[in-house]
Amino acid sequence: MSWQKILGAVIGGALLLTAGILLGHFAIPKGGADQGAPSWVQTVGRDLDESLLQSFMDQVESGKIRENLKALASRPHMATTEGDEALVKLLLSRWQDQQTGLDSASEDVYGAFLSFPDPQRPNSVAVGAWGPNSSQIFTSRRSEKNVTADQAHADVVQPYAAYAPPGNPRGRLVYANQGKRSDYQKLVQMGIDLNGTIAITRYGGAGRADKAVNGAEFDVAGVVVYTDPGDINDGQASEEETYPNSWYMPPSGVERGSYNGYFGDLLTPYYPAKEFTYRIKESEIQGIPPIPTQPIGFEDAKTLICNLAGPVAPVAWQGSLGCSYHVGPGFRTGGQFPNTSDVQVNVHNQRVIKNSSNVMGFIRGSEEPDRYILYGNHRDSWVHGAIDPSSGTAVMLEITRVLGKMLKEGKWRPRRSIIFGSWGAEEFGLIGSTEYTEEFYSKLRERSVAYINVDISVFANATLRAQGTPPAQSVIFAAAKQVQTPASTSMSVYDNWRNHFNRSSPSYGIIPSLGSLGAGSDYASFIHYLGITSMDIAYTYDRSKTSARIYPAYHTAFDTFDYADRFIDPGFTSHQAVARTAGNVLLRLADSLILPLNVSDYGEKLDELYSTAAQGNFLATLTANNISLGPLKAAIGRFKSVAADFNQRIRKLKEEESPSPLQIRMVNDQIMLLERAFLNPKAFPNKYYYSHVIWASKSSDQATFPGLADAYASALETKDWDQVRKHLTIAVQAVESAASSLEAVA
Amino acid sequence: MSWQKILGAVIGGALLLTAGILLGHFAIPKGGADQGAPSWVQTVGRDLDESLLQSFMDQVESGKIRENLKALASRPHMATTEGDEALVKLLLSRWQDQQTGLDSASEDVYGAFLSFPDPQRPNSVAVGAWGPNSSQIFTSRRSEKNVTADQAHADVVQPYAAYAPPGNPRGRLVYANQGKRSDYQKLVQMGIDLNGTIAITRYGGAGRADKAVNGAEFDVAGVVVYTDPGDINDGQASEEETYPNSWYMPPSGVERGSYNGYFGDLLTPYYPAKEFTYRIKESEIQGIPPIPTQPIGFEDAKTLICNLAGPVAPVAWQGSLGCSYHVGPGFRTGGQFPNTSDVQVNVHNQRVIKNSSNVMGFIRGSEEPDRYILYGNHRDSWVHGAIDPSSGTAVMLEITRVLGKMLKEGKWRPRRSIIFGSWGAEEFGLIGSTEYTEEFYSKLRERSVAYINVDISVFANATLRAQGTPPAQSVIFAAAKQVQTPASTSMSVYDNWRNHFNRSSPSYGIIPSLGSLGAGSDYASFIHYLGITSMDIAYTYDRSKTSARIYPAYHTAFDTFDYADRFIDPGFTSHQAVARTAGNVLLRLADSLILPLNVSDYGEKLDELYSTAAQGNFLATLTANNISLGPLKAAIGRFKSVAADFNQRIRKLKEEESPSPLQIRMVNDQIMLLERAFLNPKAFPNKYYYSHVIWASKSSDQATFPGLADAYASALETKDWDQVRKHLTIAVQAVESAASSLEAVA
Repeated sequence: MSWQKILGAVIGGALLLTAGILLGHFAIPKGGADQGAPSWVQTVGRDLDESLLQSFMDQVESGKIRENLKALASRPHMATTEGDEALVKLLLSRWQDQQTGLDSASEDVYGAFLSFPDPQRPNSVAVGAWGPNSSQIFTSRRSEKNVTADQAHADVVQPYAAYAPPGNPRGRLVYANQGKRSDYQKLVQMGIDLNGTIAITRYGGAGRADKAVNGAEFDVAGVVVYTDPGDINDGQASEEETYPNSWYMPPSGVERGSYNGYFGDLLTPYYPAKEFTYRIKESEIQGIPPIPTQPIGFEDAKTLICNLAGPVAPVAWQGSLGCSYHVGPGFRTGGQFPNTSDVQVNVHNQRVIKNSSNVMGFIRGSEEPDRYILYGNHRDSWVHGAIDPSSGTAVMLEITRVLGKMLKEGKWRPRRSIIFGSWGAEEFGLIGSTEYTEEFYSKLRERSVAYINVDISVFANATLRAQGTPPAQSVIFAAAKQVQTPASTSMSVYDNWRNHFNRSSPSYGIIPSLGSLGAGSDYASFIHYLGITSMDIAYTYDRSKTSARIYPAYHTAFDTFDYADRFIDPGFTSHQAVARTAGNVLLRLADSLILPLNVSDYGEKLDELYSTAAQGNFLATLTANNISLGPLKAAIGRFKSVAADFNQRIRKLKEEESPSPLQIRMVNDQIMLLERAFLNPKAFPNKYYYSHVIWASKSSDQATFPGLADAYASALETKDWDQVRKHLTIAVQAVESAASSLEAVA
Repeated sequence: MSWQKILGAVIGGALLLTAGILLGHFAIPKGGADQGAPSWVQTVGRDLDESLLQSFMDQVESGKIRENLKALASRPHMATTEGDEALVKLLLSRWQDQQTGLDSASEDVYGAFLSFPDPQRPNSVAVGAWGPNSSQIFTSRRSEKNVTADQAHADVVQPYAAYAPPGNPRGRLVYANQGKRSDYQKLVQMGIDLNGTIAITRYGGAGRADKAVNGAEFDVAGVVVYTDPGDINDGQASEEETYPNSWYMPPSGVERGSYNGYFGDLLTPYYPAKEFTYRIKESEIQGIPPIPTQPIGFEDAKTLICNLAGPVAPVAWQGSLGCSYHVGPGFRTGGQFPNTSDVQVNVHNQRVIKNSSNVMGFIRGSEEPDRYILYGNHRDSWVHGAIDPSSGTAVMLEITRVLGKMLKEGKWRPRRSIIFGSWGAEEFGLIGSTEYTEEFYSKLRERSVAYINVDISVFANATLRAQGTPPAQSVIFAAAKQVQTPASTSMSVYDNWRNHFNRSSPSYGIIPSLGSLGAGSDYASFIHYLGITSMDIAYTYDRSKTSARIYPAYHTAFDTFDYADRFIDPGFTSHQAVARTAGNVLLRLADSLILPLNVSDYGEKLDELYSTAAQGNFLATLTANNISLGPLKAAIGRFKSVAADFNQRIRKLKEEESPSPLQIRMVNDQIMLLERAFLNPKAFPNKYYYSHVIWASKSSDQATFPGLADAYASALETKDWDQVRKHLTIAVQAVESAASSLEAVA
C-alpha cells in the first residue's frame, strides 16, 4: 500500500476507534452491577429551583385575586350557614379542578358548639321607664343601616356577642371605659355603686369576654359594648366622613365577635369535636360572659353615653362621640331620657352544636411526603367578610391556582408535602383549626415543618407585617427581598417593611421587626399546642396616617367586596404582594434541600427575655428572695453556642458536593423539631393548650418568660416564691432542651 | 480496491469501532454531572448482616460474663456509696477501652433525694415492757447472719425501708397479712381496734409503701414487714434448707427496698435533678410511708407472730413460720413475752440529697446517627447485688465487649446509634433512668426507636421471660429463634420459651407469651413517660418447680457472686443465652434496613382490651348508662385495617431493588412513632409520668383500657359516668391517632 493509503487507513482506524470510544462512553448507559445509580440519587438531593420560584411569582395575578374575592364575599357566610356551605363547595371545586387543582381535597366535619342570636327575637339595648306602665323610649338598631344594598342581604346576622348568655337585665347605666378590672375598680373608687348596673364599655384594652367577666365580679348585671370613633375612625364620626364615602366605620356599624377567652370547641377541650367525643357540661365552660352582653354601634352608644349623669369620666376614658363622657350611674336630668330611666340588655342568644367543615387540600411531596408544610386560613366570616377572612382566602386560592397549574402541567412537584386548610368556625374561637390539631395531634407534631397563616391578607396597603417565631424570620426575609412593593418596582417588600417597622438586631443591624404570635388567628393551636414554627403574613397600615385599632369595617356589615375594592386595596396589588410573599415562603419551605429556618435566631429572643428579667426591680426582688438567674443565663449561653455550631455544620454540609440524603434529613429534623423542644405540657396546667414555654399567654406586663413573669407578679402578693423557682426551672429546662436538640447527634 | 481489501477494511474498521465502544463504555469512568454514584448510595441501603449477627453471638462468652459478675459483685454497691462509685469507674474504663470500648462514654450526675439508715443508731423492732423501768426483752437482728463472709462486709447496709420516716412508735402488735386496704378492713371487721397498733405484714400483694400508707389510714402507728418462707422459700425455713445449702433465703435474710409509690427523684417530678432544679418540699412528696416502717427476717418475724394473742387469722393469711398465725392485738399469755408487752419500731432513717451517676456509652450510627437504640440496666444494688442488678450488668458488659471489639477492628458500625445506660439509684425508685428521660425528654422522644432493659438477667435457668409492648414481640421472637437453650443445642430459646409460657394468638397460633411492662425497672419512664417501645429480657423459673415470689436472696445480703455461681446459673450459660438474645435484638434494631418491629401486633392487644370491656357486667352497666363502645370498636377495626395495609406497603418496599432511603426512613419513622401516638399527657393528671393510654397503671382488676377500667370502678360508687365517657373518648382518640400515624402518608 502507498503511505497515503496506510496513513488513510491509520487515520480512518483512529477515527473509528475514537468514534467508538465516544459512543461507548456517552451514548450507552452503564449496565450490570454498576448500572448507574438508582433514579432517586438525583432527585433526592434536588434543591429549590429559583427560576421556578420566579415563575410562580410571575403567574400570581392581582385580577384573579379580585375575582376570587368577589366570589367569596358575594354573600354573608357565617360559620355553618348556607353561605359558608356554598364556599365549602367552591373550595372543593377549585382544589379538585383538573387544570389547576391539587392532588386531592376533602372535607373534615366537626360538631362545633356555636352561639347564634334568635332571628325571631332580636337582641337589643333599650331605655325605658319600666314601671307597671312600662314604656320603651329607645331601642338600639337591629342591624347596620343599608348603604350599599349589601347590608340588606337576608343573611346578615344581627349584631351579637357570641356565647353571651340570654337574659334581660335592667339597671342604671354606667360607663366603664374598656371594661378592664382596673376600670371597674376606678368606678368603685369614684364612689359608684356598680351592683345591678348595666355597664357600657368600648372595644379595646381587654378581651371581649373579659369586659363581662370582670363586670360580673363587680356585680354588674349586663354589659353593652361599642366601638368608639376615637379608636377606630381617627375620630371621624359622621355619615359623610364614613363608608361608603371613606373606609371609616359608619355610625350604625357594630363589631360582632366571639366572647370567649379560650380557643377550640368549648365543649371538647383537647379532643376533636367528633360524634364519639365526650362533651363537658356547658356549666363547666370557662372564660365566657356570665352575664348578658350586647354590642351596639357608636350612633346608639352616643345616645346612651352622652346622656349619662354622674361625675365626668377620667381624661383617658374620653372618646370621640362629641360630648363629655360622664360615668353615671343613670341618665342626667335634662337629657334625652327621664333621669329615672334604666337600660335593659335583651339577649336571646341560643347555643347549639352544628356541623362545621374544614376543607383540606393536599399536594404530595416527591421526596419527603412525610414532611408537611401547612398553609391555612379560615373561611367563615361574621357577615360578608370581604377582608376578614376572604382577602386571605382569595390569596390562598390564587396561590393554589398557580401551584395547581404547575403541578398539573408536570412542571413541578414539591419535595415535601403541602397541606392547605380552609378552616371552619374560626370566628367562634379558632374551632376548625384547633379541632384539626387535636384530631391529628400526633401525626402533625411529628411531621410538620411550619404553619403559614394568611387570615386578613390586607388590612391596608402600606407595608408588609409579619408575625412568627424566630426561625420564621429568615425565610420571610428571603421571600420579602424577592417581591416588589405594589407602589414601586424599584423597592422590595423587605425594604419597605424595614422602613415602616424595624428594630436593631445585635446580629444583623437594622432589620424589619417580626411580631410575636398571640392567639388571634388559626396559628394559635399550631404554635401553642403543637409547637410548630408558625407565622402570619399580611399587608397593613402606615401608622403615621391612622391610629385605627383595626380596619374600621372589621366584623361589621360594611366589610364587603365594594369596601375592599374601593378603599382597602384598589387594584389588588397589595393582595398580589402578599400572595407572592407567602407563596415564596411556602415554596422555599417545601422545596429547599435544607430547611430555610435559621434556628440561631432564637438566641436573640432568649437574650431579650433574659435581659428584661435581669435588671431593675425584677432582678433585685429575685435576689432578695435568694433566686438566681445564673442557670438561665448559662442555658441561653449554651443554646447560642450550640446553635452557632449547628449553623457551621450546615454551611459545611452545603459545601459538600453530594451529601447523603439521611445527613440532610438529620439536620432538617433538628431544625423542624427545635420548636417542639420548647414545649412543656405540664408547665401551665390552668391554661388550655398553652404549652410553649416561650410564647404562652401571660397576664403580667414583664417582658420575660411568661411563666416566670406571671409567677413573679403573683409572688409579689402571695409571697409564693417557690412558684417563681418552679417557673425558672421550667424556663431553664426548656432552653437546655432546645440546646440539646441542636447538638451534634450522638 | 479488491473486495477482499474492502472486506478487510470494513471488518478492521468494525473491530476498531467495537474496541472503541467497549473501551469507552467499560474502561473510562463516567465523568462530570453523571460521575458514578456518591459513596453513600451503597451504604445507605445496607441491611442487617446475618453472618455478622452470628459472629456476634459466637463471640459471647459465658466465662467472661462470670468474670464480669465477680468484679461487679465483689463488694456492696448501694447507690452513691464507695462501691457504686468504684463501679462507675469500672464501667467507664470498659467502655473507654482502646481494644473493646465504645466510641465514647461519659458520666451524668444528678442530685438524687435518697434515704439511708443511721449507722450510729441502728433501726430495730423491739419487744419490751416500757414502763418507768423499761426493759427490752427482744430486739430484731441488726443484719443478716454471716454465712459466707460476704455478709460481714463493712459496707453491708442494715435492713431498712427507704423513705420511711424516723420515729419510735410503740403499741400492741397485730398481724395484718399483706397490708392491703382490704386486710386492715378485715381486722376491723374482726373487732380489732387498730388505733396505735404496730402492724406486722408480709411482703407481697401490695406495693411496699402501700402497707404503711394503708395502715396509717386505719390509725396504725408503725409497720413491720417480713418475707414469709411460704412466699419465697416454697415453705423451707431452716438453716439447713437455706443458703448456703440451697438457693432459699436463710432465716436472717431481710428484703430491703424503696418504700415509694412513684418513680423518679421524689423532689423533682418531671424535671432532671440538677443543681438549677426547683425541689418541692418533703411534705409535698406523695406515696411514701407516713409512719415508721421496718423490714425484718422471718426468724424474727416468727418470734413475733407465733406469740400473738387474739383470734386465729383467716386461712389465706396463714404462712410457713411453723405456727398458727393469730392476729393479736398483743402477745398471748404463756408465750415468749409477757402478755403486756408492746412492740416498738425504731427507725432512724435520714433523707439526704446525694450525687448519683448514670454512666452512658455511645456508638455512633453510620447512616442514621439520629436514631437511637437504647439498652440499659441499673448499676446500684442494695448489698452485693450479684443477681439484682449485676447479672444484668455482667451481660451488658459482655455485649459491649464483643460489639466494641467488632467496632475497634473496623468490622462493624451500626446503621443507627446505640446508647448504653448504666443507671444510678434505681433501687430508690428508678431515679437515674427517670432523670435521664426528663433531662433529654425532647431529643429522646423524637429519636428513640426502642429501649431494651436487662436488669436481673437470670432469675433462674429454666426459660426466657420477656416483657414488652406488642411491636417488640416480632424482634424478640426473631432473636430467640436464633439462640440455643443452655441445656440443649437442639432446642431454641424460642421453642423452650413457648413450652413454658404460651398463649393462643388469633394471628399466629400458639406462641410464647410476651408479658406486659409495669413499672418495676428502668423501662418505666421510657414507656410510660416517653412512649418508646420498650422491653425487658431475662431468664427465669420453671414454675412447676417453685412458687417463690422472686429469687429468694432478693435484696438481702445473700445475693452474692457465690449464690449466683452455685445456685442461680452454674456455668453462666443462661447468662450467655440472655446476652445472645438481647444482643441479637439490639443488632436487629440497630442494623435492619426496615425496623423489625411489627406494628400490626398491637391489633391483638387492642382486641383483647376491647373484648374484656364488651362483655358481662361491664358491658351491661355501660349500656344501662347509655354509653356505647361502638366508637372504640370502630377505631380498633380501623387500626387493624390500616396496620395490615402498612405491612403490605412494607412488603412491597422490601421487594424493590433499591428503594429510596427517604422512603425507607418514612416507614421507619412511622414504626418508631406509633407508640408515641398512644401518649396523652392530659389523660391521667394525677398519675406522675403515666401518659401511655394502653399501659398506664390502674387500680381496677378489669383488664381493659386502664383509664376506662378505673373510671368505671369509680363510677360504680360515685355514679360519675361522665368520667367513663371521658376515658372512653381518650381511648378512642388514642387508637384513632395510632391508626392515623400508620396511614399512607399524605
